[in-house]
Amino acid sequence: MKYSTLFLQTLKEVPREAEVASHRLMIRAGMVKRLSAGIYSYLPYGLMALRKVEQIIREEMNAAGAQEVLLPAVQPAEIWRESGRWNHYGKELLRFIDRKGAEFALGPTHEEVITDLVRGMVRSYKDLPLNLYQIQTKFRDEIRPRFGLMRAREFIMKDAYSFDADDPAAEQSYTAMFRAYERIFERCGLSFKSVEADSGPIGGSFSHEFMVLADTGEDEILSCSACTYAANKEKAEIRRPPEGMREPAPEGTPQKVHTPGVRTVEEVCAFLSIAPEKLIKTLIYASDKGVIAALVRGDHEVNETKLRRVAGVETLELAEEALIEAKTGAPRGFAGPVGLEVPLFADAALISDGPFVTGANLEDHHLTGVWLSRDARVVGWEDLREARAGDSCPRCAGVLDVIRGIEVGHVFKLGTKYSEAMNAAYLDEEGDLKPLIMGCYGIGVGRVVAAAIEQHHDEDGIIFPVNIAPFAVLVQPLDIRDSAVMEVSLAIYAGLQQAGIDVLLDDRDLRPGVKFKDADLIGVPYRVTVGAKGLREGLVEIKERRSALLVKVPAADAVAFCQDKLKA
Amino acid sequence: MKYSTLFLQTLKEVPREAEVASHRLMIRAGMVKRLSAGIYSYLPYGLMALRKVEQIIREEMNAAGAQEVLLPAVQPAEIWRESGRWNHYGKELLRFIDRKGAEFALGPTHEEVITDLVRGMVRSYKDLPLNLYQIQTKFRDEIRPRFGLMRAREFIMKDAYSFDADDPAAEQSYTAMFRAYERIFERCGLSFKSVEADSGPIGGSFSHEFMVLADTGEDEILSCSACTYAANKEKAEIRRPPEGMREPAPEGTPQKVHTPGVRTVEEVCAFLSIAPEKLIKTLIYASDKGVIAALVRGDHEVNETKLRRVAGVETLELAEEALIEAKTGAPRGFAGPVGLEVPLFADAALISDGPFVTGANLEDHHLTGVWLSRDARVVGWEDLREARAGDSCPRCAGVLDVIRGIEVGHVFKLGTKYSEAMNAAYLDEEGDLKPLIMGCYGIGVGRVVAAAIEQHHDEDGIIFPVNIAPFAVLVQPLDIRDSAVMEVSLAIYAGLQQAGIDVLLDDRDLRPGVKFKDADLIGVPYRVTVGAKGLREGLVEIKERRSALLVKVPAADAVAFCQDKLKA
Repeated sequence: MKYSTLFLQTLKEVPREAEVASHRLMIRAGMVKRLSAGIYSYLPYGLMALRKVEQIIREEMNAAGAQEVLLPAVQPAEIWRESGRWNHYGKELLRFIDRKGAEFALGPTHEEVITDLVRGMVRSYKDLPLNLYQIQTKFRDEIRPRFGLMRAREFIMKDAYSFDADDPAAEQSYTAMFRAYERIFERCGLSFKSVEADSGPIGGSFSHEFMVLADTGEDEILSCSACTYAANKEKAEIRRPPEGMREPAPEGTPQKVHTPGVRTVEEVCAFLSIAPEKLIKTLIYASDKGVIAALVRGDHEVNETKLRRVAGVETLELAEEALIEAKTGAPRGFAGPVGLEVPLFADAALISDGPFVTGANLEDHHLTGVWLSRDARVVGWEDLREARAGDSCPRCAGVLDVIRGIEVGHVFKLGTKYSEAMNAAYLDEEGDLKPLIMGCYGIGVGRVVAAAIEQHHDEDGIIFPVNIAPFAVLVQPLDIRDSAVMEVSLAIYAGLQQAGIDVLLDDRDLRPGVKFKDADLIGVPYRVTVGAKGLREGLVEIKERRSALLVKVPAADAVAFCQDKLKA
Repeated sequence: MKYSTLFLQTLKEVPREAEVASHRLMIRAGMVKRLSAGIYSYLPYGLMALRKVEQIIREEMNAAGAQEVLLPAVQPAEIWRESGRWNHYGKELLRFIDRKGAEFALGPTHEEVITDLVRGMVRSYKDLPLNLYQIQTKFRDEIRPRFGLMRAREFIMKDAYSFDADDPAAEQSYTAMFRAYERIFERCGLSFKSVEADSGPIGGSFSHEFMVLADTGEDEILSCSACTYAANKEKAEIRRPPEGMREPAPEGTPQKVHTPGVRTVEEVCAFLSIAPEKLIKTLIYASDKGVIAALVRGDHEVNETKLRRVAGVETLELAEEALIEAKTGAPRGFAGPVGLEVPLFADAALISDGPFVTGANLEDHHLTGVWLSRDARVVGWEDLREARAGDSCPRCAGVLDVIRGIEVGHVFKLGTKYSEAMNAAYLDEEGDLKPLIMGCYGIGVGRVVAAAIEQHHDEDGIIFPVNIAPFAVLVQPLDIRDSAVMEVSLAIYAGLQQAGIDVLLDDRDLRPGVKFKDADLIGVPYRVTVGAKGLREGLVEIKERRSALLVKVPAADAVAFCQDKLKA
């Protein structure tokens, strides 16, 4: 393609709204343009990169035996009611009514649609396994869309759904997708890590996320320095301290101390001159099974995903002031486990026991000398807190590090959550009706492009991995009015095209400095510069964007040189 | 691909809800599945056909110099307010609010989005011409979705938008798109006709529709039997009768006759024993410029698109009973032009003048002996009615025929409607700011697939045009347990794949009759049948789906034979 006809306008200015490098660079390199909060148009150069990623995904999905379908964006409420998610999903599910008053949603995901589709068509074990995927536009009404394509409201996703007869087969499907994802992200040139994850509102029994490592990533990953264990922050487990660490509680009772206006961990620690490790935070929650309380050390944070699982509840919300007062008899800031008449879940770090400081369930008072095993009726000591750097690995004797990542893929073993709720069953070899075992597998296609740029750029611009670069080579005549320069440039351009290489010819009548800047910004992997001076010796200059290495090669060898480089 | 692994389930039963052949066959051939009214999922076999059409469109759009983008489905209300269409577009525009209460629509078309995009990027005449297109999912909340993909609510459209500096350039862009459309529909194997069309709610100065000819088409086309004139029913003009036909009105006044309870054309004609040609229907309309009346012959129908243009009004609605009574002094059925105090627009067929029968603006009375030129104050005699078979061609001395078609494409010259409303301007060579001249160009991608099937099928199933067939060749071993049969089948299958031909191997262990029926139903253009009997003579049988011609060829020549056929 010729640059002069390509609708590609680069920007010198750094766009104000863009907080991360990929967002800034995608706007500056004319890849996307914002229409509304979290809603972007793909311009030609951005769409080319997107299509390269789509093609890689398609090839690997097809190779793994998945078949492509295309499901509607607009989904009727009735199937979401069948699955039970209509009232459950929260405000990210954009709901609306059509002209006849029927309720619909813009699909944020397609478990319901695919289950509805398959239940009419899969009848017997002979129709299994089945894996259907699509590359399609989704909408999630994010409360805080940001970082451009990273956290958009409208976005393109590859979602696949597997259907199997039993658990071993479903796990084979899961593994096949896991391997396909590894190949996809490798081919996209990403440095990534697969981590254990919680399955969240999708539900299901286990799942992994594929994280592209980047300092600006929104997600925290806990990764063991000694073994291969890695999990996202929501999921990351912490090795349970040995029971033997618990000292026997001495005889006695807690002491009530007057702590006027002293509420926060910092205030209590300062007032009583204690370390936060010696304080117990008592958090009161409203859940679908009534009020519960979580106890964690003053320097720890509750992980609500873990608490939900341990307490066996579906919904969980921090209690409002009124509820706290009703249950503790005191305003916020003075709750404590002693005498508190709600189920108490203690974090495993509290297993070493007292003496602790806690709220006294009385305004302006705390208790000292509290021993949980002696003074409170704790349901149990479980892993309830957010892991942090330095915590013990749950799998080995190592410790966990924190690294940051961008989630580009997520695989879930769903089990029978949807097939049971929606009656998607098959006849097994004995003629018995059994629910289908499902899995689902997502890739944020636009986010892969953004994550690749987040991982591969420098201060001058994008450094596209070859496989997802819109153009692999840029041919750059330094002076388009010099006929010898243009002749050689056009010959190299034609030769590269003939070799099946995506090539851009910068035929714009601009100063070399401007062209060089644009070349670096848009991140074409190889740049062939043709100038009058070099041509006097029959040479052109080839620059590798990634390494910035410059070599001079005979003009006649330029095509072969690029071919070799691209094959490598 | 192997049939045994393809997610393709054919149906014997004719689906009840399907009214036209393409809809029936697309469901029976496992191409699509209904999710909700006017909302369909593409199954693998249907998606393959869709992708073939998309690819043809892409190639021709790129060859015509258009560049691909991808615009959002969710569009903010503010840009629709800028263009003036937010309140104007009607209920097909599905509106909703997001979680923050902001108003949005699901895009039924993208003039606003593209104008907003371009106005920030096109600055000078040097950036022109520009043509951007996308293949994207749209939503129109049709009151009566039907015929499967023909009139769906969610559908895939290719829409292109051109931007030019002046009218001649804009018309060149229009012509380039027109020619590209001809090539696209030819390559898709369609028999089609381009017809003049009204530009409707999109607006603009002129437009053409591309109609696939089919008896079940929803659209009526008026086509001249003598010249190339063709137009859709909304637009089709009728040659004006010569002024000389008007006879001078005799002296006199109309006669009032008592017509108790006689209201309709049929009733009046029967009661007074006159032909409907001698009756004038008087239709009262409410418009944005007040009440108006249209006069047409008893056997003619008003064309509201024409009336709107002639009367210079934007909105037009048949008057309610109360308004009719207020304006005529009589209930519905007795309105007439004599003494009616609203602007009267007469159809040109009434130019020959009286004597006519009309309503008397008095309950249970009509007038006879009415001469419009003498008895009424008519604004003018214009072409106001629906054309019908036998009407005079507006371009030559021929007469119009009615044929039916399916609209698969529509090209519009928009002019400056959007660019002026939304301030999309460029600097011309003199440095003056001028509005961009726009065109827009749509193709219903799914509808092309449906229309091709509507045009190419027989009682046994689909007859895919080669270029859009999911598979060009079906290799059909009659008995998969016969190793000689399978060996030859696999060799031909491999040979065809190597030749770059999309081929399906029917490796299912089913009776030949079932396989033949499926082959006809799914409409693969060429079927290579490999049976033990033929193989004894070294022969396989090749059937062309379209002609039903069967030939026996040596097994070793099967690949070359198919290649030759497909090239032709």
